[in-house]
Amino acid sequence: MPGLGPRSARRAVLHLIRKRALLLIPLADVMQTVAETARECLNCGNVGTTDICDICESEKRAIGVLCVVEDVADLWAMERSGVFKGRYHVLGGTLSALDAVGPEELRIPRLIDRVESENITEVILALNATVDGQTTAHYIADLLEGRAQLTTLAQGVPIGGELDYLDDGTIIAALNARKEL
Amino acid sequence: MPGLGPRSARRAVLHLIRKRALLLIPLADVMQTVAETARECLNCGNVGTTDICDICESEKRAIGVLCVVEDVADLWAMERSGVFKGRYHVLGGTLSALDAVGPEELRIPRLIDRVESENITEVILALNATVDGQTTAHYIADLLEGRAQLTTLAQGVPIGGELDYLDDGTIIAALNARKEL
Repeated sequence: MPGLGPRSARRAVLHLIRKRALLLIPLADVMQTVAETARECLNCGNVGTTDICDICESEKRAIGVLCVVEDVADLWAMERSGVFKGRYHVLGGTLSALDAVGPEELRIPRLIDRVESENITEVILALNATVDGQTTAHYIADLLEGRAQLTTLAQGVPIGGELDYLDDGTIIAALNARKEL
Repeated sequence: MPGLGPRSARRAVLHLIRKRALLLIPLADVMQTVAETARECLNCGNVGTTDICDICESEKRAIGVLCVVEDVADLWAMERSGVFKGRYHVLGGTLSALDAVGPEELRIPRLIDRVESENITEVILALNATVDGQTTAHYIADLLEGRAQLTTLAQGVPIGGELDYLDDGTIIAALNARKEL
């Protein structure tokens, strides 16, 4: 499991066994339930317990704006910030020639369908600012050109960021995109 | 010294003593020289060996654009990125009511003088994206309003940044400042 080495795993196991009734059995039950009920939203790829997830079904969400993210962890990060009121499309990864991940593996055809059928006016490409993320964003941008307004998250200095600790690329991006006060 | 605890300091001392001829004496000489020759540029506050630093004197630097930074480490960070072709103004810290740091302590009056006397058309406030840095930037922006174009580094996702590891404030800033592709 990510972030859990052999030593931590052994400690966790012992802790669970010691707290059998309080922790181990309830946790096993919950995992059983999750295994039975968790599924991917057929529309956007988010994780939920229904065929169509709560966000896709919510009437409070703006129709017409889609935020494309790499995976569900990124969707959760956007939701934590609470600022985005539209709906999502979860790709499930990034394009990768090395790992043989093509558009078909990534829910990209479904994205094209949605943009056409849901009257999407703006697609926000909120992919990670990594090489793979940006490659995938450019690929999608080429496909969607002319079908919706395409935007991308601003690049620059993160909140709390100190220049001395930033990489050169970020400083260059922040300086080139400097804004008037 | 920052980043050097008592234990590391003891190890460094022993290492220096053991390499007396190779390391200790040359290092002592260099430190002596630096102590005698290093000085702050009278114009911008950068560190150099002359009264006016190399950047201020360089003819290759654009006249008319000043980049305001907190300290010399930030100036070095900007220089490493190699993208800025104007000149600098080093404040020497941030305003702080708690530490009784006012504008007089920060080379702010000198900044106002320079904007007036050097025909500055743009002042880039490249202060850190911390609370103190932004407070100081707003104070300077108020003082300089109308005297030059004021810009600030873009805020957003740093290069290589993954949404899941970014704080909410950065995601909000990046989403609000999203750019068309």
